[in-house]
Amino acid sequence: MEFSTQLYLVTDSDMASIEGLPEIVEQAVLGGVTMVQLREKHADTKTFVRIAQQLKRILSNYKIPLIINDRIDIALAVDADGVHIGQDDMPYAIARKLLGKDKIIGLSVESMQQVTEANALDVDYIGISPVFATPTKTNTKIEFGLKGIEEISKITKHKTVAIGGINESNTAAIIKAGADGIAVVSAIMKAKNPQLVASQLKQLTL
Amino acid sequence: MEFSTQLYLVTDSDMASIEGLPEIVEQAVLGGVTMVQLREKHADTKTFVRIAQQLKRILSNYKIPLIINDRIDIALAVDADGVHIGQDDMPYAIARKLLGKDKIIGLSVESMQQVTEANALDVDYIGISPVFATPTKTNTKIEFGLKGIEEISKITKHKTVAIGGINESNTAAIIKAGADGIAVVSAIMKAKNPQLVASQLKQLTL
Repeated sequence: MEFSTQLYLVTDSDMASIEGLPEIVEQAVLGGVTMVQLREKHADTKTFVRIAQQLKRILSNYKIPLIINDRIDIALAVDADGVHIGQDDMPYAIARKLLGKDKIIGLSVESMQQVTEANALDVDYIGISPVFATPTKTNTKIEFGLKGIEEISKITKHKTVAIGGINESNTAAIIKAGADGIAVVSAIMKAKNPQLVASQLKQLTL
Repeated sequence: MEFSTQLYLVTDSDMASIEGLPEIVEQAVLGGVTMVQLREKHADTKTFVRIAQQLKRILSNYKIPLIINDRIDIALAVDADGVHIGQDDMPYAIARKLLGKDKIIGLSVESMQQVTEANALDVDYIGISPVFATPTKTNTKIEFGLKGIEEISKITKHKTVAIGGINESNTAAIIKAGADGIAVVSAIMKAKNPQLVASQLKQLTL
């Protein structure tokens, strides 16, 4: 599937109730979001499937890919467009085998060594994580910063998206450093007007 | 796959470290456990897969089925023999579709209505949950008791296994009430000698 990481929304139901996600996601898409990742760490599987089905219906209308964080069972259950896996999630080879070659698989990289390792895999994109310090993920490692993005952009063979502490103040610099796109969580999830914030961020990625 | 719910071990890595599970499981199987369910609510997916692979290797040697709690992705990843789903897990129809007709799917029932509903499904067994009060699961509903097992045994068309607060003091009564088997967590997970406890429980199911 064709996709662009240009403005990638990652959901977080600690920031907005899971029942409110479909509304926020649709507004964000109207504002210009190019991909959506459903990340859900607390909901039971039944609820996770139900929300994923709702997002799938909405996003299909706009031809925006739905990516599921970590849970390949959920992705298969709702025929999502792909999954995003971290280094502590399902090993990539198994994920690819279960999903098949046509699905999008994104992989988080948290060190230059992992960037190099990812070059040996046919992942569809890498998530550069984190670019800046962020309150969203407390267990992540050293921040790459703009310098890190520049280096990664030189050596990776994959499409990239930067994540971590990204907002209107630093988006333009991240794109200038070489990232193909930005992933945002709180900037949109906590926005009073997700559509407006998405369109402003989109503008900054151009 | 042929299977017997006679003495069904459900793991709990809150009671024993996840790294210690393979050892406990093998001892329990030597003591007579007939099925093993890997239930893991906290581990990351990578660790979950690794432990599931280890258990699969051990249990294959003894031709004992490995059942994964809830996570169909893990079951697919390690080619487990089946999954056990609760009422808040993956909907049964999707689970069956993802796993295919040859895998074992067990379903927890927590009310007489759910027992009746399960009769309309081709699940492979039902878990009668809980029989007695238990510290393991805090969110479960009304206890069925021995009377409940008797009633369920009359109306269900499925193989059954009783779970919840089962130990040496009540195993014989549960089997006498009509359950096809008992599922135990703490009785074996917390045992100093899992093989001995398993063989004693097995004796009581005869």
